[in-house]
Amino acid sequence: MSASSNTVNLGTVFKGSKDGKVVAAQGTDKPVRPTDVVIDITHSGLCGTDLHFLKADMVLGHEGVGVVSQVGSDVTRFKKGDRVGWGYNHDSCNHCKFCASGWDTLCYDNKMYGQKDLDQASFGDRFVVHHDFCHAIPEGLSLRDAAPLQCGGATVYGAIRHAGISAHHRAGVIGIGGLGHLAIQFLAKMGIDTVVFSGTESKKDEAIKLGASEFVAAKTNPKLEGVKPVDFLFVATSAQPDWSTYVNVVEKNGTIVPLSVDAGKMEIPYMPIVGKQLRIMGSLVAPRNVHREMLEFAARLGVKPMVEELPMTQEGLNTAVERLQKGDVRYRFVLTSQKNGGSANL
Amino acid sequence: MSASSNTVNLGTVFKGSKDGKVVAAQGTDKPVRPTDVVIDITHSGLCGTDLHFLKADMVLGHEGVGVVSQVGSDVTRFKKGDRVGWGYNHDSCNHCKFCASGWDTLCYDNKMYGQKDLDQASFGDRFVVHHDFCHAIPEGLSLRDAAPLQCGGATVYGAIRHAGISAHHRAGVIGIGGLGHLAIQFLAKMGIDTVVFSGTESKKDEAIKLGASEFVAAKTNPKLEGVKPVDFLFVATSAQPDWSTYVNVVEKNGTIVPLSVDAGKMEIPYMPIVGKQLRIMGSLVAPRNVHREMLEFAARLGVKPMVEELPMTQEGLNTAVERLQKGDVRYRFVLTSQKNGGSANL
Repeated sequence: MSASSNTVNLGTVFKGSKDGKVVAAQGTDKPVRPTDVVIDITHSGLCGTDLHFLKADMVLGHEGVGVVSQVGSDVTRFKKGDRVGWGYNHDSCNHCKFCASGWDTLCYDNKMYGQKDLDQASFGDRFVVHHDFCHAIPEGLSLRDAAPLQCGGATVYGAIRHAGISAHHRAGVIGIGGLGHLAIQFLAKMGIDTVVFSGTESKKDEAIKLGASEFVAAKTNPKLEGVKPVDFLFVATSAQPDWSTYVNVVEKNGTIVPLSVDAGKMEIPYMPIVGKQLRIMGSLVAPRNVHREMLEFAARLGVKPMVEELPMTQEGLNTAVERLQKGDVRYRFVLTSQKNGGSANL
Repeated sequence: MSASSNTVNLGTVFKGSKDGKVVAAQGTDKPVRPTDVVIDITHSGLCGTDLHFLKADMVLGHEGVGVVSQVGSDVTRFKKGDRVGWGYNHDSCNHCKFCASGWDTLCYDNKMYGQKDLDQASFGDRFVVHHDFCHAIPEGLSLRDAAPLQCGGATVYGAIRHAGISAHHRAGVIGIGGLGHLAIQFLAKMGIDTVVFSGTESKKDEAIKLGASEFVAAKTNPKLEGVKPVDFLFVATSAQPDWSTYVNVVEKNGTIVPLSVDAGKMEIPYMPIVGKQLRIMGSLVAPRNVHREMLEFAARLGVKPMVEELPMTQEGLNTAVERLQKGDVRYRFVLTSQKNGGSANL
């Protein structure tokens, strides 16, 4: 496996290409520093963010999990055979004011997916990461189920944690998709009264099964009349919602947490922000301490993504990408490595 | 003074009128409940918010201070002769979830200026208020200087307090006016590194004297280049600034606190909110516990509004209104009662 005593070959990797198709390629030889963990990837989720990088000359995927195949000489926290995952951020400087206060995700010198470390990612055979950014998958959580938690779960749990919601609050979740279906579970399992806003009634039964206490179909009730206001509104739609409508269901002193990705502007009525004393609170994916908390919470309380498995091959990946682009998935694709096994019970 | 044993006549009051001029009128007889304090008004500030009510059939003014002339039989906290003021909110239900957690300003059944209690306000001879919403003016703070603190000071201090800023943070203040010149003082006296953004250089010397550590003239440096980012940005302009520009000087994990009043939408680039993990945090005027803190802080640390005095007459008020509409004041008008004295040292 190793090209020499301190490098490892990444094997097959799957990259973006000029025409937006995922293509298989031969991975590079990657140095293994004394602090590194080498992970043989078994599964990876496919996240909406990956779609933004389809034309980039980089290896794709950032919801990776697998089994440790090798550790550097300084690594004591992991050993060969351990089940692990890693997140959107691969490394950080560890000494700036953000790192020193637990916010590695905000470090100006970190290694966020899509920005640095472009020769490796979770669609491939192998990943090399500093042990500080490698996370144990707790017992009781399968690798398949753990994959979508590495970004989707971390984004949602990180936002919930960052926003400061408690069990006495009432929460709203707009949109049931890759993020929303996890948000509902996390919130409900924290004892929070959770109302779900969706377009139609089609996902009502699932929302209730996931833990929602209430369901509002916006096409049936476009003004959201009669809905008891929420203290926290998590926005998990693929694009921004109509803020003029949703601002009305946020209680005074309430918090809006936008999770969508959107290149435009946020256009939101101004006076309710001041008059109702609202907070709009951005939240990036969870920093590493919160990422670990999230995995332990998910294992302990049984938060499980609803997934559809496809093989981690060029064909499997392109199928997943095309279907995700059409919104044709309930609710997360997991690509399973054909090389490193990938039994759901791993 | 009293029309009967349990009412008091409000004397002369100054009201809005159809053509937007302030007019003198005879005040009503007002019941004095056992819990009430009667205040003989000595001074009132004029605030931008008053301009929105110039055409309303209501008594105007909400930055009132004066001397207690009478107390109801249940009032033990105040006595005749005490120097007091009151804020934007005149009363609240005292038992809802907001009141019970200290947020009387958010109570759905409170008495905010311009919404209820329209027959009395601070442009007049007298004001009757529940002792819970009456605030002692601490020694060392003159009544004249205390007047603009009752809304301007309370708005700014309330926002600073609500936003959770600490001495290790760096703050920005956009706009030096009625609110901004107080924000600079409060922040600087909390030990906070404060940069002021203004249109031109004309207010630079004053900003530095008020405590700013840095001054940026936006017309000279429209892209705000080279400005070290701030952790908190207090927006004290009369209208919304260009958010696309200012979002760049807010540090990751930073907070934007809009204090302006504006009927339109807030249009702010969306991705920095998520990617830089920004908070936008609305803040209404301070609730009563914070209002009291603010007065004590101002007295203890010497926060003083810069004021221009005019007589509290129909003519004096209309002059103040016209000049405020043109932005012709540095930085707050105080109207001084011709009836109840009004030495600055009262």
